[in-house]
Amino acid sequence: MISNFTYYNPTKIIFGTGTIPKLNKLVPRKAKVMVLYGGGSIKKNGVYDQVMAALKKREVLEFGGIEANPDYDTLMQAVKKIRKKGVDFLLAAGGGSVIDGVKFIALAALYPGEDPWEILAGDGLSKAKEALPFGTVLTLPATGSEMNSNAVISRRSIQEKLSFSSDLVFPRFSILDPETTYSLPQKQVRNGLVDAYVHVLEQYLTYPVGAHVQDRQAEAVLMALRDVAQAALRVPPDYNARANFMWAASCALNHTLNRGVPEDWATHSIGHELTALYGLDHAETLAAVLPWLLWVKRKQKQGKLLQYGYRVLDIKTQKYSERIDQAIEATSAFFHSLGMPTTLTAYGIDPDEAAQKVQARMESHGWTFGEHNDIDGKTAAEILRLSR
Amino acid sequence: MISNFTYYNPTKIIFGTGTIPKLNKLVPRKAKVMVLYGGGSIKKNGVYDQVMAALKKREVLEFGGIEANPDYDTLMQAVKKIRKKGVDFLLAAGGGSVIDGVKFIALAALYPGEDPWEILAGDGLSKAKEALPFGTVLTLPATGSEMNSNAVISRRSIQEKLSFSSDLVFPRFSILDPETTYSLPQKQVRNGLVDAYVHVLEQYLTYPVGAHVQDRQAEAVLMALRDVAQAALRVPPDYNARANFMWAASCALNHTLNRGVPEDWATHSIGHELTALYGLDHAETLAAVLPWLLWVKRKQKQGKLLQYGYRVLDIKTQKYSERIDQAIEATSAFFHSLGMPTTLTAYGIDPDEAAQKVQARMESHGWTFGEHNDIDGKTAAEILRLSR
Repeated sequence: MISNFTYYNPTKIIFGTGTIPKLNKLVPRKAKVMVLYGGGSIKKNGVYDQVMAALKKREVLEFGGIEANPDYDTLMQAVKKIRKKGVDFLLAAGGGSVIDGVKFIALAALYPGEDPWEILAGDGLSKAKEALPFGTVLTLPATGSEMNSNAVISRRSIQEKLSFSSDLVFPRFSILDPETTYSLPQKQVRNGLVDAYVHVLEQYLTYPVGAHVQDRQAEAVLMALRDVAQAALRVPPDYNARANFMWAASCALNHTLNRGVPEDWATHSIGHELTALYGLDHAETLAAVLPWLLWVKRKQKQGKLLQYGYRVLDIKTQKYSERIDQAIEATSAFFHSLGMPTTLTAYGIDPDEAAQKVQARMESHGWTFGEHNDIDGKTAAEILRLSR
Repeated sequence: MISNFTYYNPTKIIFGTGTIPKLNKLVPRKAKVMVLYGGGSIKKNGVYDQVMAALKKREVLEFGGIEANPDYDTLMQAVKKIRKKGVDFLLAAGGGSVIDGVKFIALAALYPGEDPWEILAGDGLSKAKEALPFGTVLTLPATGSEMNSNAVISRRSIQEKLSFSSDLVFPRFSILDPETTYSLPQKQVRNGLVDAYVHVLEQYLTYPVGAHVQDRQAEAVLMALRDVAQAALRVPPDYNARANFMWAASCALNHTLNRGVPEDWATHSIGHELTALYGLDHAETLAAVLPWLLWVKRKQKQGKLLQYGYRVLDIKTQKYSERIDQAIEATSAFFHSLGMPTTLTAYGIDPDEAAQKVQARMESHGWTFGEHNDIDGKTAAEILRLSR
């Protein structure tokens, strides 16, 4: 049965070519704005200049250097500056890491408690009553952060990586101009495609509860990503392909697909460990885990694997075991077609060592993952040992 | 190419069984509430009692008698009462007509101009700066009004039927409890299924612009409706089927499917004339027009008709003309399978007379419809003459 759910997503999306100048209407006229960004690619691709031009005569401060997997200590420097200068509107210009970071900053800046770390590691979310308003200019389609209320924050000094979700941190608006993706390295487009695809699978490849709308919508985003993936990788860039990729990535994680249905997220959780251990890109970890997880959990996931094979991958054989084999293989093949490896060995990582380390870490924390919460350290190790 | 678009939908959806008591948290504690409804079916099926119980000790006024195709004069009576009594929160309990009516009332009650009719027939929307906040308790899945900012209002005294759309009239929340549909007559379930299905087709069966996400999402809602239609008609009611029907109807017209793509709506426009002339239910008019419109516009719509046939209806023949024939026939067959006729003659209406009357009315107003704006009175007449 479909579970009860709430759906709420007040973010305004402004989508299309040449939309950055609309910032002038979207940001309050008297705002004291801080523009936040990452490593500075927006200064090379023209996005920074477009943003500054659009903000006109507003007072604008800047905060650059938000890293991939945004770090708590970096973000707290921004919070300090915001409080000191009386900034009252934030603008995130970048990808998911910058936007996630700004979500935390927006809450931390107005946090009424002693230590904003509580927002991530304690009961801070119940204390937080408001957040600074913020908008985003997205430059890297992948995480969906531009249209949801989730964020993942790292604190390298104590080796923690934690997430939170709060209705207070929906972006007021997000500008999605597909042309901002034109300067992305192909590797980042590849990563974004895989990230979005796996986001959908985490919400879909569990077990059937008769949620026809959610299932069909998830399949729609998967098929749209498959439709445009090759064209999205192309250089010189194709506008329509980039537009579809950008909108698909937002729709992959904007709270529509997981309403009232079970969710998995074990691939993400195991992947986070691999990023911490070996420094792999987030999307690289997903592709190196997912096919092997599906293999190990093929029995529990058979209902959805059969449906995914039939509807998304057009595998019509009525020999069910074969269809499941082929569905898993076709998923790997899709990643390969984007230039994405699906094994740890492709990165020179020893699967046995990775398995041992991840198992130890999961067991020390008592973690279990998956829609049945039954992927323990031992099962994760079994999955990782296959990734070769 | 996909056109630039904005997407914005701040309505909070509370979905599931037993959710009406959540009104107590959703409606402001000190609100002076007016509960608005239609012909009183909510008093028979228990919804009225649940709503009143949930509102606890709040001051509650009532306004019943909002008719199907809500009438301006009726709605203005509510406006008068609201102003006199200082009501500051509205609650619509019913289907699309009640919700559409409440949207107009919410704007009209705070309208700063002389005559609220301007909202529909003049430049009133530019003058309106705020609306009374309102929520809804949906009892009839069909129009999608519970999750959009559109409304259609009739004014019988001068034979007008006009629509408006404004960000000011998104419901603050909508409660969707599938069990509220259990007491619906089968005819209304049938009408709701057809209405939702045609809503999707109006946003989809035009011409391709390479919008893979929007196309796949539209196909998802169509397939979900087809998945559950027979089960949704069943008595005793099946919870999951009703739940899918209810959510599909919302998703059919919540501003996601028509972003950046052309729209048709000629079937609706011609259908409105048939309701005015012959008193047919809205959904009855849609089913009596759509197949014949597709027949007449099959050349212009061929790209999308082929895609619809292949993806939604599983018609794989590569003889394209045959696939289009079969796609149109399968659409009619789907309506028939729900007990819905697809001809004017089924209602004893002379197609030639209807064609003549609609043509005269369209020509006197200078109306043209459709994604190319080329369905004039003569073409509408051609369509209607086939409806036999």
